[in-house]
Amino acid sequence: MKKIFLLVLFISSQLFAQIDKVEPPFWYAGMHNPEVQIMFYGKDIAQYEVAVSNAIIIKNVQKTENPNYIFVTIDTKNIQAQDFVFSFSKNKKVTFTKKYSLKQRRQNAALRKSYDASDMIYLVMSDRFANGNPNNDSDKSVIEKADRKNPGGRHGGDIEGMIQNLDYIQELGATALWPTPLCEDNDKRYSYHTYGQSDVYKIDPRFGTNEEYLKLSSELHKRNMKLIMDYVTNHWGSEHWMMKDLPTYDWLHQFPGYAQTNYKMTTQFDKNASDIDAKMCMDGWFVKSMPDLNQSNPLLLNYLIQNAIWWIEYADLDGFRVDTYSYNDKVGIAKWTKAITDEYPYFNIVGEVWMHNQAQMAFWQKDSKIGAIENYNSYLPSVMDFTLQDAAGTVFNEDEANWEKGMIKFYENFTNDFLYPNPNSIMTFVENHDTNRLNTIYKNDFKKYQMAMALIATVRGIPQLYYGSEIGMNGDKSKGDSEIRKDFPGGWKGDANNAFLKSGRTEEQQKFFDFTSKLFTWRKTNEAVHFGKMKHYVPENNIYVYFRYTDNKSIMVIMNNNVNSQSLKTSRFQESIQNNTSGKEIISGKSIDLKSDILIEGKSVLILELN
Amino acid sequence: MKKIFLLVLFISSQLFAQIDKVEPPFWYAGMHNPEVQIMFYGKDIAQYEVAVSNAIIIKNVQKTENPNYIFVTIDTKNIQAQDFVFSFSKNKKVTFTKKYSLKQRRQNAALRKSYDASDMIYLVMSDRFANGNPNNDSDKSVIEKADRKNPGGRHGGDIEGMIQNLDYIQELGATALWPTPLCEDNDKRYSYHTYGQSDVYKIDPRFGTNEEYLKLSSELHKRNMKLIMDYVTNHWGSEHWMMKDLPTYDWLHQFPGYAQTNYKMTTQFDKNASDIDAKMCMDGWFVKSMPDLNQSNPLLLNYLIQNAIWWIEYADLDGFRVDTYSYNDKVGIAKWTKAITDEYPYFNIVGEVWMHNQAQMAFWQKDSKIGAIENYNSYLPSVMDFTLQDAAGTVFNEDEANWEKGMIKFYENFTNDFLYPNPNSIMTFVENHDTNRLNTIYKNDFKKYQMAMALIATVRGIPQLYYGSEIGMNGDKSKGDSEIRKDFPGGWKGDANNAFLKSGRTEEQQKFFDFTSKLFTWRKTNEAVHFGKMKHYVPENNIYVYFRYTDNKSIMVIMNNNVNSQSLKTSRFQESIQNNTSGKEIISGKSIDLKSDILIEGKSVLILELN
Repeated sequence: MKKIFLLVLFISSQLFAQIDKVEPPFWYAGMHNPEVQIMFYGKDIAQYEVAVSNAIIIKNVQKTENPNYIFVTIDTKNIQAQDFVFSFSKNKKVTFTKKYSLKQRRQNAALRKSYDASDMIYLVMSDRFANGNPNNDSDKSVIEKADRKNPGGRHGGDIEGMIQNLDYIQELGATALWPTPLCEDNDKRYSYHTYGQSDVYKIDPRFGTNEEYLKLSSELHKRNMKLIMDYVTNHWGSEHWMMKDLPTYDWLHQFPGYAQTNYKMTTQFDKNASDIDAKMCMDGWFVKSMPDLNQSNPLLLNYLIQNAIWWIEYADLDGFRVDTYSYNDKVGIAKWTKAITDEYPYFNIVGEVWMHNQAQMAFWQKDSKIGAIENYNSYLPSVMDFTLQDAAGTVFNEDEANWEKGMIKFYENFTNDFLYPNPNSIMTFVENHDTNRLNTIYKNDFKKYQMAMALIATVRGIPQLYYGSEIGMNGDKSKGDSEIRKDFPGGWKGDANNAFLKSGRTEEQQKFFDFTSKLFTWRKTNEAVHFGKMKHYVPENNIYVYFRYTDNKSIMVIMNNNVNSQSLKTSRFQESIQNNTSGKEIISGKSIDLKSDILIEGKSVLILELN
Repeated sequence: MKKIFLLVLFISSQLFAQIDKVEPPFWYAGMHNPEVQIMFYGKDIAQYEVAVSNAIIIKNVQKTENPNYIFVTIDTKNIQAQDFVFSFSKNKKVTFTKKYSLKQRRQNAALRKSYDASDMIYLVMSDRFANGNPNNDSDKSVIEKADRKNPGGRHGGDIEGMIQNLDYIQELGATALWPTPLCEDNDKRYSYHTYGQSDVYKIDPRFGTNEEYLKLSSELHKRNMKLIMDYVTNHWGSEHWMMKDLPTYDWLHQFPGYAQTNYKMTTQFDKNASDIDAKMCMDGWFVKSMPDLNQSNPLLLNYLIQNAIWWIEYADLDGFRVDTYSYNDKVGIAKWTKAITDEYPYFNIVGEVWMHNQAQMAFWQKDSKIGAIENYNSYLPSVMDFTLQDAAGTVFNEDEANWEKGMIKFYENFTNDFLYPNPNSIMTFVENHDTNRLNTIYKNDFKKYQMAMALIATVRGIPQLYYGSEIGMNGDKSKGDSEIRKDFPGGWKGDANNAFLKSGRTEEQQKFFDFTSKLFTWRKTNEAVHFGKMKHYVPENNIYVYFRYTDNKSIMVIMNNNVNSQSLKTSRFQESIQNNTSGKEIISGKSIDLKSDILIEGKSVLILELN
């Protein structure tokens, strides 16, 4: 008996020892694309023959040059949610097995709504927002431990911290949350930004668990708010578990190993570009610590598509933000984006295309006529309005307007909207986690802050706020990224200043918060600002006037960039004012007569609901 | 008898007194568009019935609110060249008549070739180039007389001066001449630039006669060179004869009378633009002294089309440059351009679209995909590379390159070529009669001049030189337009310095001339530079390398913007160098080994014919 028991134990342990990873760990029944490519990873696993139970059909078994991987594609068409078993055989004998689950999808999972121009997105640096669970700060399973004194270290912000402060975020008028990436980044140091991920099926334990991420999603949904995942297709971290044992040599862009990108995204459409420059842009690595993924490898591309879909289903996501979108393999990333939007036709994805020219940015938006010049369609629903952000970084200090300075910069940004296939799907912002903070550029000038916020609250597109600016936080990027990613005051137990609570805010913080909250809470209610057309007027005397309007609602925005108050004649705007005789200013609540000149204070904005 | 004689005399004088102007003064048989709209102008001419002899068909007689005009459209289909007679009747009695001619066209008039990227265009300010005939300087028929001491006055440059110096222009390597407008500009003062024309069927007598203009054309053609007319569709001068007696009120854009354009050309494609701004851009006047023509008036539009065609036929023109192209009525100017290119399918027209964004400029080029976004096609074959000119104004002083400065600016200009439907039809230039002179910006630094000329001689497009820079002329626009439009030395009898002749040039002038002449004379011979593809490489260390190539010819251009000499590794350019092992530098004649590093002096350029 003892011997038999030991033998069973031996076989049994072997059964599991052979498989170290199965990814995706489970899948869903009833997907638009019925095929799923399951990766099994284990020592010499490619030696085995694979079979599957429950009459499920294996479409393809792909082995690579690395015997530790096997990719098994099954067809789930018409297969109900159920568990089944993969068996691995040698010499026609099953050596070990692995249970696999097809799970039930949520109702209407495919037709989920997503974020759009009716939303306001609140962007948080996940490690720097709020430390809701101090117990997970230095989880033993990962290398870097919390050290709040280290500006580039882990500070302990986490998912629980976000959940605990959803009231705050909601009160601000935000309707969607974009946390920077939450999957595990096990770099030895400087891992806090989490863009160098080491396991893309697992929430970093310092942020919490997969279950906590799901809880964040459902807590947001309870509030009718949305969760946007920051997805990274371009690269993983050098500590990603696969890096020590690549499935294929060309899983990464190899030179061999590292070579830096030339960052020249224009090479992707430039007819004059040399092949070597185009290759170095896409294939070169963004930074040395982030191995560059080769999306032209179908196994990897499928892996990334499935991982993205898995998170959408698992965490009931409402949208993606995709990091360094235009550094990916151009064809590969379009396939990735199309596969996801084929699966979820209303799902929004905003790509980081950090360029400084509207035609170049428009190239990357879905169904772009500019992209079509080069026979390209990215299928990416949304890009970011980096040229607006460029302008916002200087305009409010330009008291004297000229041909190129002052309000004309905003005006000119929107003159190029015709280049975008869908300008109202562009994310508008004045700062993010990679830029100077607005309040540093403008030295915490509240009037300038108000103008900037009013701008993104009222122009076309999807506004995005960066955590902390709403309480006047500042940060100078030239002094290091950590300066623009400071801990939110009150996010850590013992913080002297707790800006999450009215009672904890300084007077100055409260002033910023009140305005922001009032503005974006109003914004929720006005569909002309969400989906109305825009009509703007050439700025005169550094005053920019524009309207957002639907068939039955109009708002008029007047932005005075002069230091002194100005009087504005309204006759020029007749085609927009039409029969309206007055406007209610949405911050002050005052009624403004449109039949006479409008007085507007220096460095201020009026947002008028016409009536 | 006496009485009868007096009566005949009276009737006879009436016959002619009734018609002050007939335009076009004659026409041509066998045009693609067989209809011609003939304008008769004379006191109360609209009272008469019009008939025509020789079985020619009148398609339409149009009278306007002004009784002094009548527009008669005849059909010339299948009508041979001949003279015929218009008769004007009242009460069924012919009161007077007017002979009209349909002339014979030159052979292959319709299929004339035009200028293209194999050409080099020499732009002269007509009043400031050379005074070949001092007798016409102060013609009594026009108001402003010559005053060479007045910077904004008439200096006496003329067509005869151009004809006398064609050897010079040809020796320089130019193959086409673009004189600023030559039709009469009878403004009381400041008429020398001739963009405010008073009679568009007549050469300004201070420049010469229509016959002399024809002679200029034929003298150029004898040399296998081309004549480009500077055409102005947007406006006429306030002294134009029609201004005192407009054919129709809406012949001009009336507010009534003058209102200034807002110069915001973006309103023509901006989806967000207000109607009033779009209208003020197109309909506002460029300057007060230049009444803005309303090209949406079909009578005027036809008048402008026919005037343009008349000059092409009459003076055997090789191309147009169109002033302020993007300030015209957008639809009207497209019709004008299409009508001309329908008549002359190979005729090149370059429009002045002075914008600073490639997508915006590309909007205006024929068959633009950008234009198509707004369902617009200008039919304009060529635009001007103003963004290249923008860059050329600063690059050569940027000794230290960074992400935005130095050679990267040129590189970035060409990365956007994909936006243009036909980048090789863009006119390339570093200065013109409206900009600072290059030699002022760069303080007559010969090395920087060489780099600038080498650039436009070797990149895609049609190079344009501005008179005088080839002998080191300078001019600071901030001190007034006259500063950038100085008299060419030697163009006036008694000039101390005659730069038209080698014997008259200073050593410095000869140095500039020699280089320019050598460069552009070489350029005539190299078809890779004319029509080859371009391939460029991301500048590294402020060195820009690009190639122009056909299937069997390649040139390599290396431009070193550093002050110091640099050594360049060639391996990176392998895809362009291919099997070539050396290159002949076209200025020095030296052979450069491509298998080892290339040494290049500071602030210099190497143009290598690979072999």
